[in-house]
Amino acid sequence: MDVLNDETYMKLALDMAESAKGQTGINPVVGCVVVSGGRVVGLGAHLKRGEGHAEVHALAMAGEQAKGATVYVTLEPCSHYGRTPPCCERIIEAKASRVVVASLDPNPLVAGRGVARLREEGIEVEVGLLGEASQRMNEAFNKFITTGMPFVTMKTAMTLDGKIAAKTGDSRYVSGPQSRAFVHTLRHQNMAIMIGVQTALTDDPELTTRLSVPALHPVRIVVDSKLRLSAQARMVQDGLSPVIVLTVEGSDPVRKAELAAHGVEVIDCGAGEKVDLRAALKILGEREIASILLEGGGLLNGAMLESGLLDKVILFVAPKLIGGASSPEAFAFGGFDKMSEAIEMTDMTTERIGSDICISGYPKYVQLQGD
Amino acid sequence: MDVLNDETYMKLALDMAESAKGQTGINPVVGCVVVSGGRVVGLGAHLKRGEGHAEVHALAMAGEQAKGATVYVTLEPCSHYGRTPPCCERIIEAKASRVVVASLDPNPLVAGRGVARLREEGIEVEVGLLGEASQRMNEAFNKFITTGMPFVTMKTAMTLDGKIAAKTGDSRYVSGPQSRAFVHTLRHQNMAIMIGVQTALTDDPELTTRLSVPALHPVRIVVDSKLRLSAQARMVQDGLSPVIVLTVEGSDPVRKAELAAHGVEVIDCGAGEKVDLRAALKILGEREIASILLEGGGLLNGAMLESGLLDKVILFVAPKLIGGASSPEAFAFGGFDKMSEAIEMTDMTTERIGSDICISGYPKYVQLQGD
Repeated sequence: MDVLNDETYMKLALDMAESAKGQTGINPVVGCVVVSGGRVVGLGAHLKRGEGHAEVHALAMAGEQAKGATVYVTLEPCSHYGRTPPCCERIIEAKASRVVVASLDPNPLVAGRGVARLREEGIEVEVGLLGEASQRMNEAFNKFITTGMPFVTMKTAMTLDGKIAAKTGDSRYVSGPQSRAFVHTLRHQNMAIMIGVQTALTDDPELTTRLSVPALHPVRIVVDSKLRLSAQARMVQDGLSPVIVLTVEGSDPVRKAELAAHGVEVIDCGAGEKVDLRAALKILGEREIASILLEGGGLLNGAMLESGLLDKVILFVAPKLIGGASSPEAFAFGGFDKMSEAIEMTDMTTERIGSDICISGYPKYVQLQGD
Repeated sequence: MDVLNDETYMKLALDMAESAKGQTGINPVVGCVVVSGGRVVGLGAHLKRGEGHAEVHALAMAGEQAKGATVYVTLEPCSHYGRTPPCCERIIEAKASRVVVASLDPNPLVAGRGVARLREEGIEVEVGLLGEASQRMNEAFNKFITTGMPFVTMKTAMTLDGKIAAKTGDSRYVSGPQSRAFVHTLRHQNMAIMIGVQTALTDDPELTTRLSVPALHPVRIVVDSKLRLSAQARMVQDGLSPVIVLTVEGSDPVRKAELAAHGVEVIDCGAGEKVDLRAALKILGEREIASILLEGGGLLNGAMLESGLLDKVILFVAPKLIGGASSPEAFAFGGFDKMSEAIEMTDMTTERIGSDICISGYPKYVQLQGD
């Protein structure tokens, strides 16, 4: 049993926001609860880009009861005119007397101005309640809005000895059914999914979201410097969501035309022999792909890690030992000479998922002096 | 706050037993609490082989108050005359009225007979309270007493990508200080520590127990088929605990004599080119080494795993990625062709230790049909 307090309402607001993860495009997920006279009088969440913000929905539900109410909102109300009028003005109009904000908006267009605007009108504002949870929930948005680059979450299933397949390549299955279902949830929550062409050729994966409820399919992105992806690949044929192939300037124009004829968007990323991954992410960001789920294989995972482009790593560690020096590794890259040079992971969490262990964390690329 | 009940007292008995882990040799650890008239009247644990059993100590403390008391004991009281008289008779003499036993004694000389003997005398006996905890605590004893083979716990520190060192061999340090302190606790709790000669040559380790309190040093065992261990090695020179070298029949007699002259016991294990690990463990068991902490490297870990000789695996997974296809792996062995052939781990547990994750489990070697 929870004691009823500010946190109770903010948790509810966070839960509503969480439920919209994956469906707001490049917008953050936001939840809002309006409480007045000891009762919940309004509930809302931002559900789709271009449609109402959380506060607008919640205040509409509250109607006249919003007067003198407390508004709990997971992200700072906006103060700028975007696709919708600013939420601050809506709160002021509704004559709410107190606003509790989980975290400030990292969007440079807002960034504290929302809070300042509310205070200007004599509304009591508190900032920071469950702020960390709110920031985590919008970690992809936070990166995208401040850098223009997509937030990349790598996921892989591996054995306890760090292998993603047996030496023969056999990988059915590394992790258990619960972990695999969770991966489909991650697909729903990310705007795109990215793999290397080798994985595409070996597995011919659909890369769609398959869950017990209907869900959103991510854009499928294949890193393919030599344009080896077949136009007959399932993901090209199924038409369930766009397919983007990242290649290099010099790659075969005939193959390019063939893929394009099948609806695949082929993008040149640099003039080198291999796809310039940083340039690729920049281009994808410009196309408003704010979040990418990277599903490997090991070479692409390793290259993304080495380039400092992995923002988050989620490992599903299965309770098994497969062995084999040549068995494919989760991160295939040259590696460092010294253990002290290893890439550190911060904010690691562990969770049991079925019989697997889910380990997640954030690679830390910059070693600060004296850190 | 715990509610006072049978479990409260059994937990205390288990805690006392746990404190003696490592100091009872091939004997199990056992704790005992005697409760009468609503008060604890006796506490005891088995502290050293050949000295008093837990029940004897606790009943001595209780004195006359043991009459009509409840005796909580983590392991079935013995019914046979060993180095000490049977505890069952002591309990009967003391006129206790009820005995709560966590787990039956797997020792074929006891195995239910203790419980039967008590019931014969009209004493109420309950079996199984916190039984799993008691069995885990004595997992080494349970294997040894039923098979004559030592229980082998492998520990290693590895990166999130399954490496125990960088490609250059550098491994200072993989895990954090808390994990390293825990390893020394494991050394205290095991009768012997085992490494491969390559690790001995590379690191010249002491393999002693270094903690903030004085503790017991394990016997040092080196697997060394070609007798490459130097008589000048620290572990040979320090005299802190015995050193055993496992080799093969044909190895150099001059080197054998040299090591023996420095107090090293050299044991032939088979006539092959490599040490017969199963034969070696059998010989060590005959010498009453009931528990071994295996500290690798990867080749010995892999060989022990392949031979089905690892009973338990403890991995300290550090939050870092080192990379490198040639970086040494925690388990270096040929590996399996199919993911479905991988060695499963059962009863996995995870725990945070500092910034590391400690994963432990039990390899399951026999795949039962339809399992």
